[in-house]
Amino acid sequence: MSTEIEAIEAQMSAHDVALLFEQRDWITAPVIDEQGILVGRITVDDVVDVIRAEADHNLMGRAGLDEDDDMFAPVLATTRNRALWLGVNLATAFLAAYVIGLFEATLEKMVALAVLMPVVASMGGIAGSQTLTIVIRGMAVGQITHTNTPFLLRKELVVSLLNGVIWALVVAVIAILWFGSLKLGLIIGAALIINLFCAALAGVLIPFLLQRLSIDPALASSVTLTTITDVVGFGTLLGLATVLLNI
Amino acid sequence: MSTEIEAIEAQMSAHDVALLFEQRDWITAPVIDEQGILVGRITVDDVVDVIRAEADHNLMGRAGLDEDDDMFAPVLATTRNRALWLGVNLATAFLAAYVIGLFEATLEKMVALAVLMPVVASMGGIAGSQTLTIVIRGMAVGQITHTNTPFLLRKELVVSLLNGVIWALVVAVIAILWFGSLKLGLIIGAALIINLFCAALAGVLIPFLLQRLSIDPALASSVTLTTITDVVGFGTLLGLATVLLNI
Repeated sequence: MSTEIEAIEAQMSAHDVALLFEQRDWITAPVIDEQGILVGRITVDDVVDVIRAEADHNLMGRAGLDEDDDMFAPVLATTRNRALWLGVNLATAFLAAYVIGLFEATLEKMVALAVLMPVVASMGGIAGSQTLTIVIRGMAVGQITHTNTPFLLRKELVVSLLNGVIWALVVAVIAILWFGSLKLGLIIGAALIINLFCAALAGVLIPFLLQRLSIDPALASSVTLTTITDVVGFGTLLGLATVLLNI
Repeated sequence: MSTEIEAIEAQMSAHDVALLFEQRDWITAPVIDEQGILVGRITVDDVVDVIRAEADHNLMGRAGLDEDDDMFAPVLATTRNRALWLGVNLATAFLAAYVIGLFEATLEKMVALAVLMPVVASMGGIAGSQTLTIVIRGMAVGQITHTNTPFLLRKELVVSLLNGVIWALVVAVIAILWFGSLKLGLIIGAALIINLFCAALAGVLIPFLLQRLSIDPALASSVTLTTITDVVGFGTLLGLATVLLNI
């Protein structure tokens, strides 16, 4: 057991204090000011509240909820809080719709593309959200440093390529059997690989980018990611089809 | 300050112990066996680990990640863990694609439906995930009881109807201006209201149903919800169009 007394500086953020308590199993710690003079004490029961609040914020932020929008809030307050987030998402959904609209002529000639396009977009969304969750959690528990970011990016890209190839084969076979078109199978497979790769890239880079812009990653990462995976998914599938099917 | 000593029974779950410490700001508590004999002590630093582990599980479970799939796991282990979840989601994506496929004839005649259908599905997914997050959090912090479940369900349904009407108007106006069809605007507005209502219903009921089936809600809620909002979203929009547009 260490007999050295470690002190917390008064200006340290609640997040960093909670991390210290968690990593070192502290029960209590003295707080000092800039001159090193004892100004008080923090006990771990306050830290428990900080950890719970951060966990809630991470979970609820992903759904665009804030701490006021709990199950006991009045109906109108809840409606307003959630309406804002639905509005943000509507804007991104219409962006995706706009991309689809660019290929109306292609869709008219091959309606199978309309059937399959949500598959490519949703697989990108899922894969990207896996990467995003690992990165946001890594940031929250202080695992991510400047040193290991390139390692993390490389790893996520390799994982996305491996899973891209595996599931592209499955999706291609189903598409070929369903619609009897080898070309359609190859196109949807290629679109899936490209979308999963972009999803991993976005999943790593978005939280860093938002942090640099001083935007809360827990709040804005998810909607930014989905926008990218939708636009890339729809755009790649319909774009490849337009070019390669000569329609 | 209460001088009565409250003891924890040895068979109490880690989750319930953590809730007690959190709610009562305990630093330490005695543990007793079934005969009321003191068998040990729990201190809050263990509780901090439980709360963090539960928070991680809730956040990562939503993306189909388990605790082994962190940023330092080997590439192949990570790929395998995530591939399983992507496979589950692929099955649900193809279920949605199958529903779209039922309406191929309708889509061929009105390709605007293909452009707009992701809007209805994604708004349902977002609204449902807001409800789901509130319910799963309420369960985790012990806010949800048998007494307040009917209240919660009613509230979520009212909120979903209010937001459904608000955003149905916006979406309908945009659809009318974009494609110059009043009927298309009415159809997409109706589909949006129906999908948001079903999303709220599913968001409340799914966690309870999974809990009763002894399936971890943090893991399976999200994919079940998205399946429902996709199927209802695509089915309602294309179904209403097929019936009302006489095509």
